[in-house]
Amino acid sequence: MVSRMARKLRVVIVVGVAGVGKSTVLSHAKSILGGEGYAVEILNYGDFMLKYVVEKGICKSRDEIRSLPLSEQRSVQSLVAREMRNYIDSLMLKYPEKDVVVFVDTHALIKTATGFWPGLPEYVIKELRPDTIVVVEADPQSIVQRQSKDLSRYRKDYSDVELVKEVMNFIRMFSVASATLVGASVSIVRNEEGRAHEAGRSLAELVKGL
Amino acid sequence: MVSRMARKLRVVIVVGVAGVGKSTVLSHAKSILGGEGYAVEILNYGDFMLKYVVEKGICKSRDEIRSLPLSEQRSVQSLVAREMRNYIDSLMLKYPEKDVVVFVDTHALIKTATGFWPGLPEYVIKELRPDTIVVVEADPQSIVQRQSKDLSRYRKDYSDVELVKEVMNFIRMFSVASATLVGASVSIVRNEEGRAHEAGRSLAELVKGL
Amino acid sequence: MVSRMARKLRVVIVVGVAGVGKSTVLSHAKSILGGEGYAVEILNYGDFMLKYVVEKGICKSRDEIRSLPLSEQRSVQSLVAREMRNYIDSLMLKYPEKDVVVFVDTHALIKTATGFWPGLPEYVIKELRPDTIVVVEADPQSIVQRQSKDLSRYRKDYSDVELVKEVMNFIRMFSVASATLVGASVSIVRNEEGRAHEAGRSLAELVKGL
Repeated sequence: MVSRMARKLRVVIVVGVAGVGKSTVLSHAKSILGGEGYAVEILNYGDFMLKYVVEKGICKSRDEIRSLPLSEQRSVQSLVAREMRNYIDSLMLKYPEKDVVVFVDTHALIKTATGFWPGLPEYVIKELRPDTIVVVEADPQSIVQRQSKDLSRYRKDYSDVELVKEVMNFIRMFSVASATLVGASVSIVRNEEGRAHEAGRSLAELVKGL
Repeated sequence: MVSRMARKLRVVIVVGVAGVGKSTVLSHAKSILGGEGYAVEILNYGDFMLKYVVEKGICKSRDEIRSLPLSEQRSVQSLVAREMRNYIDSLMLKYPEKDVVVFVDTHALIKTATGFWPGLPEYVIKELRPDTIVVVEADPQSIVQRQSKDLSRYRKDYSDVELVKEVMNFIRMFSVASATLVGASVSIVRNEEGRAHEAGRSLAELVKGL
Repeated sequence: MVSRMARKLRVVIVVGVAGVGKSTVLSHAKSILGGEGYAVEILNYGDFMLKYVVEKGICKSRDEIRSLPLSEQRSVQSLVAREMRNYIDSLMLKYPEKDVVVFVDTHALIKTATGFWPGLPEYVIKELRPDTIVVVEADPQSIVQRQSKDLSRYRKDYSDVELVKEVMNFIRMFSVASATLVGASVSIVRNEEGRAHEAGRSLAELVKGL
């Protein structure tokens, strides 16, 4: 029953608090896996969603998406997730000779003035059907420092160690709740200060084990 | 596609450990929002359930509900949640000129000798379809003090700071698990000792942002 | 509507970190409940799965199951859970005069190099439909000591107090996520060093209260 020779498609959702260095870790993992013969794509969920809604004439900007009634936002999210999974499945044809790894760069939660919104609610995670949800973590103190260096990008209320710890804990909880709905694993990848390459290596190893 | 002028119905589930001061915070939030032109109702899930089962001739008291086999309790809970959502939807007709805010006063978990029972299991949360689950929190020490002042209301085994912390953490976990099923946010509202009015104000602001 | 005289079937999932003493606690609970007239069976999920896949000719060993593609592993898990529930339901016929208690000895998560895999994902927990998920816990320090005494059984990377605490916390999160899907309770049973009989007694009392 097992066709060991079949090529594999691995779908890896990657989440983490703002300032944890997710993008850097992802780009290291991509170049490591690429160098070992894998076809690797990194899909940014937010960018993918924006492109989709603009193309379909639903909205013209991220702000316009956010101003939609919640029920319509949910429909859009679900449609985008389905579209993304279709795109992911098409990659096996795009790279006919290789194992394919897709990293979905997204959020386990979106922190707003109206609370922590699940980035992977049931109607999204069941469309994406990932193999694993990787939570990139780092020392909360160093996250606060990275956030305070880049005030244009992060809200100032984030710059507090206790708050970062709390958000990190909620990210774990949301990841577990989503993973349970699809039987995906939850993995922690530590991104220590100045060691993003090692974190990328850990992520690459983890993916190869899937 | 966006009809910005449409009136909004906001469904806000409010949970919190016994002794956290949920009722006081809710009544402040209601009077603040009422003063700003919103139609606000607070629905107590337990009271609503009791009224329903008595009217339908299913049970005569809360104790009788608890003595039902678990599978029947689940059916009742699911029916009650659907009935409550129907009632909530009818409020847009009852208040034809206003934005409507419904607070559902309930529990993320019910602590018993047989464990923590989810107050918002899938078959309840998917009927209620809230926009947000608000967790009212306070300093565990002050919660223990409030509980010990009112021994008639709380079980004595609750009067321990470590236990309150543990229950508070489980409330967060259960809230996240339920929110993930419907794409609701999870919000923390802090009710500091003697500052219930401020907590009510925070809750009102949060609701207006939805 | 309530048939108080009906015999009860109680389905109790029992989880806990490796080295927590789950088997000992279970065997105490079984003998206590057996002595009080209950028909008690302990089903090991892993053993049950292996037996099933061997009988059906799907696989010959645990390693072979693990080498199946993830989607096939999920199908097997779901089938095994349904089969187990059918078996559980048949026990009311096997023991026609008694209340039946079934303990399912399994894991809330399986720790591997590719992350924490949910032991009770949606497609398993909805087949098993337990009344409660019991998490057996102990002092993390004593768990590490028990693990290090039995290196053949546990991975060496487990032998660290901080890691055990982290895994224990994830076990709680996964248990809550699964319980929310079926309206089961989550119970903590403490197994203090040298007091497994007391833990078994607590578990037995808890089960009787269901």
